[in-house]
Amino acid sequence: MENNQTEISSLGEFGLIDRITKDFPLRNESSKKGVGDDAAVLNFGDKEVLVTTDLLLEGIHFDLRYVPLKHLGYKSAIVNFSDIYAMNGTPKQITVSLGVSSRFTVEHIEELYAGIRLACEIYGVDLVGGDTSASVTGLVISVTCIGESEKGETVFRSGAKPTDLICVSGDLGAAYMGLQLLERENQVAAQSKEGKDFQPDFSGKEYILERQLKPEARKDIVAMLKENGIKPTSMMDVSDGLSSELLHICKASDTGCRIYEDKIPIDYQTAVMAEELNMNLVMTAMNGGEDYELLFTVPLTEHDKVEKLKGVSIIGYVTEPNLGAAMVTRDGNEIPITAQGWNSLAASQQ
Amino acid sequence: MENNQTEISSLGEFGLIDRITKDFPLRNESSKKGVGDDAAVLNFGDKEVLVTTDLLLEGIHFDLRYVPLKHLGYKSAIVNFSDIYAMNGTPKQITVSLGVSSRFTVEHIEELYAGIRLACEIYGVDLVGGDTSASVTGLVISVTCIGESEKGETVFRSGAKPTDLICVSGDLGAAYMGLQLLERENQVAAQSKEGKDFQPDFSGKEYILERQLKPEARKDIVAMLKENGIKPTSMMDVSDGLSSELLHICKASDTGCRIYEDKIPIDYQTAVMAEELNMNLVMTAMNGGEDYELLFTVPLTEHDKVEKLKGVSIIGYVTEPNLGAAMVTRDGNEIPITAQGWNSLAASQQ
Repeated sequence: MENNQTEISSLGEFGLIDRITKDFPLRNESSKKGVGDDAAVLNFGDKEVLVTTDLLLEGIHFDLRYVPLKHLGYKSAIVNFSDIYAMNGTPKQITVSLGVSSRFTVEHIEELYAGIRLACEIYGVDLVGGDTSASVTGLVISVTCIGESEKGETVFRSGAKPTDLICVSGDLGAAYMGLQLLERENQVAAQSKEGKDFQPDFSGKEYILERQLKPEARKDIVAMLKENGIKPTSMMDVSDGLSSELLHICKASDTGCRIYEDKIPIDYQTAVMAEELNMNLVMTAMNGGEDYELLFTVPLTEHDKVEKLKGVSIIGYVTEPNLGAAMVTRDGNEIPITAQGWNSLAASQQ
Repeated sequence: MENNQTEISSLGEFGLIDRITKDFPLRNESSKKGVGDDAAVLNFGDKEVLVTTDLLLEGIHFDLRYVPLKHLGYKSAIVNFSDIYAMNGTPKQITVSLGVSSRFTVEHIEELYAGIRLACEIYGVDLVGGDTSASVTGLVISVTCIGESEKGETVFRSGAKPTDLICVSGDLGAAYMGLQLLERENQVAAQSKEGKDFQPDFSGKEYILERQLKPEARKDIVAMLKENGIKPTSMMDVSDGLSSELLHICKASDTGCRIYEDKIPIDYQTAVMAEELNMNLVMTAMNGGEDYELLFTVPLTEHDKVEKLKGVSIIGYVTEPNLGAAMVTRDGNEIPITAQGWNSLAASQQ
């Protein structure tokens, strides 16, 4: 390391993004909102155009020893759709750029695209561009998604107000437990005498596997909220873990929050797997990441409506900023929420 | 290689893109034009929104032994702006995603962003998003650019008609000669006893170096054409080499073409460097790539107007498709044009 140089791990991903993007002013009338939410927001006529992008790197974001290429393609698209839904928008177009090393064949790339195509079909999204080039090392996937929302309907991270209810869709921690399972079975397979013929036993664990390998974006939740006339005051998707996302909303909205340990939705299979691996279940649900559920806040006046929504849990409430962000445990204690989410920059520096 | 598997090099980049994108229909009303031009075109209100994306990989698209990070950032942005100008549009927003390995520090990334910022300032573009993650190997840069044009003003590759004049801005082959020079000096430096203190002598070669390290997008040409009331019938930017781009326009427009060897604009420094390296000058200009000049066609009736434009050369004309694409040499012979452009996929397979 040269003199006066700062290790990236000392800032973390979000610190680094803050630092390098702070000197970029927005000049164009059509640039409504830049860096700092799930997607950028552009103004074109009577629509707001949403743009989000994700870069997926082999060895960091995925491991081809246990992720089939078709699933990888599907997930690459879904994680971008999820960012658009998290803005209360509808994904419309994607571009896909690939870097492929020489160990990949045309059929491999077709498998990957079969997954992207399936996701596009299911979610009604058009593939409109991209390029493909060589890579000296492994597979690189860059997806950009363009979505739209009616003017004024876009929901940001920054709109939460004290007394708002904090809600989350589905359940948390399952994708992370699915990853733990895949990694364990992969190690067992590597040490097994049966070699390539080794068949891992995933029975009773289908749900956590599917949550890891074939996540869905919560189009249905966004539609249900609209049908019920509920507009969230803030929203984002849970990709890095609930703790990390709660802190993002609190920071962007200048608030604090309280969430209740016993309200965090967790599936039975997630709990069984955490038990098997001797891991703390609540910490898994708080910090696991890759759930692609929606975390959102609604005004307290919407309580009765939200309480009736299937697949939505009210997990806490928004507070004044000076109260900070904390989890209220089953025995009534408060534990400060810290971001221990999945941080690929920190992970790589270890 | 497994059975029934196709090596990617057998299809090439464009063959691969054709094959994997042919099963993606466009479903959304706002998707006007998908894969197959410099940018996708989306319809939003009275504007057409243009989207283009580029993935730049260390060891394939750039070599940090002789490309300063600030220049790399600048160029990463410029190549995307160039794609938007090539659609007759104006770039407005970019997103930047980075994959960085642990040998990079925050200051390195800031250098890269300083170049991106400078390009954004000069071209009036807003940075609106992106993400940063770890990479196990080298630097990965993914840039997506969003631009706009007035409805009906977008220019595609597919509009060329027989008898149209073929025009190109600036001069060709210089960026490629700049790359050859950098690679030669880098080899000399590696073998030199002076080691790190070795100072290459670039005097008299500043232009070709700048064309390689700090290219510009031809915003001025697009503006000049508008001022003079000229709307090209087809247009694209010269990134892979003139031969390759001419074939793209002929294919998309279903035409042939004739260009004249003695009309191809070449700078003096490019000619001197080709002589020094004992390389065929015209082939260098035809296949060099990375010029980021604009190649466009205009109706024959615009001849007198186009002829007067500074920095624009008329190099040939569009023909019926059955005549194919050919270059007319100085001695009057016709040589078929073949795509020998810079093809990163083929290159990596060697």
